[in-house]
Amino acid sequence: MTFYNISQELMSLHISQNQSAVQRFLASHPLADCAEAFVALIDDQQLNVLEVRDLFRLMTPESQITLLEYLPLTLQTNLAEYLDITELVQLTQNMAHDERADLIATLSIPLQQQVLSTIEHEHRVDIEQLTSYPQSSVGAIMTSDFATLAMNSTVEDAIKQLKHIARDSETIYQAYVVDVQECLQGTVSLRDLILAKPLQTISEIMTRVCIFVRVEEAQHIASQAIRKYDLLALPVLDINNRLIGIVTYDDAMDVAEEHVDRHIHKTAAVNYSGNLKDASITLMYRKRVFWLVLLVFGNIFSGAGIAHFEDMIESYIALVFFLPLLIDSGGNAGSQSATLMVRALATGDIIAKDWAKMLGKELMIAALLGITMALAVSFLGFWRGGYDIALVVAVTMQIVVLVGSVVGMSLPFLLNKMKLDPASASAPLVTSIADALGVLIYFSVASLILDMPVSI
Amino acid sequence: MTFYNISQELMSLHISQNQSAVQRFLASHPLADCAEAFVALIDDQQLNVLEVRDLFRLMTPESQITLLEYLPLTLQTNLAEYLDITELVQLTQNMAHDERADLIATLSIPLQQQVLSTIEHEHRVDIEQLTSYPQSSVGAIMTSDFATLAMNSTVEDAIKQLKHIARDSETIYQAYVVDVQECLQGTVSLRDLILAKPLQTISEIMTRVCIFVRVEEAQHIASQAIRKYDLLALPVLDINNRLIGIVTYDDAMDVAEEHVDRHIHKTAAVNYSGNLKDASITLMYRKRVFWLVLLVFGNIFSGAGIAHFEDMIESYIALVFFLPLLIDSGGNAGSQSATLMVRALATGDIIAKDWAKMLGKELMIAALLGITMALAVSFLGFWRGGYDIALVVAVTMQIVVLVGSVVGMSLPFLLNKMKLDPASASAPLVTSIADALGVLIYFSVASLILDMPVSI
Repeated sequence: MTFYNISQELMSLHISQNQSAVQRFLASHPLADCAEAFVALIDDQQLNVLEVRDLFRLMTPESQITLLEYLPLTLQTNLAEYLDITELVQLTQNMAHDERADLIATLSIPLQQQVLSTIEHEHRVDIEQLTSYPQSSVGAIMTSDFATLAMNSTVEDAIKQLKHIARDSETIYQAYVVDVQECLQGTVSLRDLILAKPLQTISEIMTRVCIFVRVEEAQHIASQAIRKYDLLALPVLDINNRLIGIVTYDDAMDVAEEHVDRHIHKTAAVNYSGNLKDASITLMYRKRVFWLVLLVFGNIFSGAGIAHFEDMIESYIALVFFLPLLIDSGGNAGSQSATLMVRALATGDIIAKDWAKMLGKELMIAALLGITMALAVSFLGFWRGGYDIALVVAVTMQIVVLVGSVVGMSLPFLLNKMKLDPASASAPLVTSIADALGVLIYFSVASLILDMPVSI
Repeated sequence: MTFYNISQELMSLHISQNQSAVQRFLASHPLADCAEAFVALIDDQQLNVLEVRDLFRLMTPESQITLLEYLPLTLQTNLAEYLDITELVQLTQNMAHDERADLIATLSIPLQQQVLSTIEHEHRVDIEQLTSYPQSSVGAIMTSDFATLAMNSTVEDAIKQLKHIARDSETIYQAYVVDVQECLQGTVSLRDLILAKPLQTISEIMTRVCIFVRVEEAQHIASQAIRKYDLLALPVLDINNRLIGIVTYDDAMDVAEEHVDRHIHKTAAVNYSGNLKDASITLMYRKRVFWLVLLVFGNIFSGAGIAHFEDMIESYIALVFFLPLLIDSGGNAGSQSATLMVRALATGDIIAKDWAKMLGKELMIAALLGITMALAVSFLGFWRGGYDIALVVAVTMQIVVLVGSVVGMSLPFLLNKMKLDPASASAPLVTSIADALGVLIYFSVASLILDMPVSI
């Protein structure tokens, strides 16, 4: 069934308001797709949030929870504001712990307080705990809903214990072995348990090598570890080494995507991650203007270079013809190198100490690129301004490509060394630096070859 | 234990060649880290492949297999070439089916044939099947090693069946229900089985809503589906709807990373995905030169624009001062927009039909950006060339930012419409287009305001 059909079907269920038809439909379609269809219907103003609420009330509690978790947070919040407080409390008591903490944190303060004062004590403590972590930390995506086992329990008992919590737990495929201080001692997978003998103890079969992450660390550290070590879930420890949560692989995948968003936007000098469609005009203005204006002032250097060579430009006006081409080429080669390095540094394919090795390689590559491009441009130069100009542009091209590439590849390393994000070596920044250098190189080469005195 | 320590420890194990020490060490350290350490030691020429092979021979078969799977494919291949044929066959019989297919496909032809003629028939058929799919298709990352259940078996029997294959299967947490034609009918998780009553049948408890992917589809389709629907594994069907494999979440995470690599590199006009450190100089030259040279010729338009206005430039040489600044600003704003759109189209945050809506928004944002930048540059203009020049550069700035942004945001949509990859709207391409337009806009505005006749 296509996406279009799901939307159509939801619209007709909205008209009929037939409870059993709603439940049948949701049981036979992926809820992730239904959530997407609801978002599209609201976007296109075919349904409003109140109407979605009415359909929502016809669903089974299980469908309600799963659907809610698939909706974007803004829509979850809108919907929650239209629910009765008893409905909302009921839902939040059964949602995944990490999801509900996110939801409650975005509710209006009065509603938040109403939920927290109504909900069972144990849940309230959990929510307050999970919402206390900084937004970009591991704490903000972990769930407190994980299975623990004692070292001395038997395999048989452990399986019973997992079975008992299977309905409500985030995962039962991975359990964590803790001591009396709640410190992590090892991990056991359900597969290990199934393969073991019923009377073996957990301490006999557990894996003692534990990969973990600290609660205050950045989220992408967790998602990288999950990918690297092929984990289903990653345990999260607090400062006292106590196990306080886990990050599951599905959340790790979402974190990785968001991290990439931020990275890509940063390389275009935009400091924003999130859905482009939802971003307001003033928000996007603010996220984009900083670098653009900064680069305007940065470009004064190019202008100053040109002012310095004004006399020569007046004598050889044909030189202006090649100005955009030459400075662009340096910028283009430079932004290629910068992008490659920034990404490779982010994924760990290369590390800080590889700089010298990469520089050597980059010089060779840039030399080859420069020769090719110099050849291409010398024909243009000859046609436009004769032999002298051809020589000037060819030599300039070779140098600007070399310099642009070296700047582009070195800047990310330099930022990294200064403990800044290498991704700030954006294409616009590299282009602007390469341009200023390009102007200087171009007219210096020209004044040498054309044998013109430089105005002081 | 830090990465450095692992490398040191492996070096001392290499010196001692103490089998039990090797096995103890590997049992108490993450094999993913050990694999990384081996790669670094070879890179730094502290160990050669033969020496790694000798250490490898001291490991337990289980460690050997896991470690091998964590090594990069090139090193796996090198190592394999130094093993005896019996060792190699033994290993490949126990490796994950997808991993071993990749390995065998990269071996030298004689060695490949030797392995295939020695290995058990059933394994050979499987390898030949898996290596027959195109490199970027789902077939090339799926594994043929999955658990199937019959509709009419009982929960009790199903659990027994999963237990039986638990040691060697890729995953037992997700099982697939097929009919006699091997067509997919539903899925059952181990959690479902644990929660069900022993005498219920599989058809009673299975989930009938199946998300699947076709074997010939692109890999990132599979990884997106796994992320969207929060799956542990995604079933793969052939043209006859038969279940022939699964893609697991951990492979999906790797595919997503690689897909992002390719995307990011493309936006910098580099057509390469892979480890930057391993790429040869000539390879990187070839991957980067195409667009650079193409853009050199594209820049002829900027040059032609300048040639057209040569007389005016001679009269107002101060105009050249602002040339790099103005054309860069259009390019910078344009590459911001392009990057945002390309990424949003890739993630599905926006779709083709959103173009008009996004255009309206972009015009507003660009107008605001243009005003700010025009204000910034007009001071420079006044200082450098008086009131007239200030007006020219301010008006030009406003227009180039608007035009650059619209080009930057529309190009990805246009490429998408033409069934090309929107990511080809790279920063260098957008910059070059914005530059050519910028030159025309600049001198046209100048000739209007400065009231100069244009040379024809």
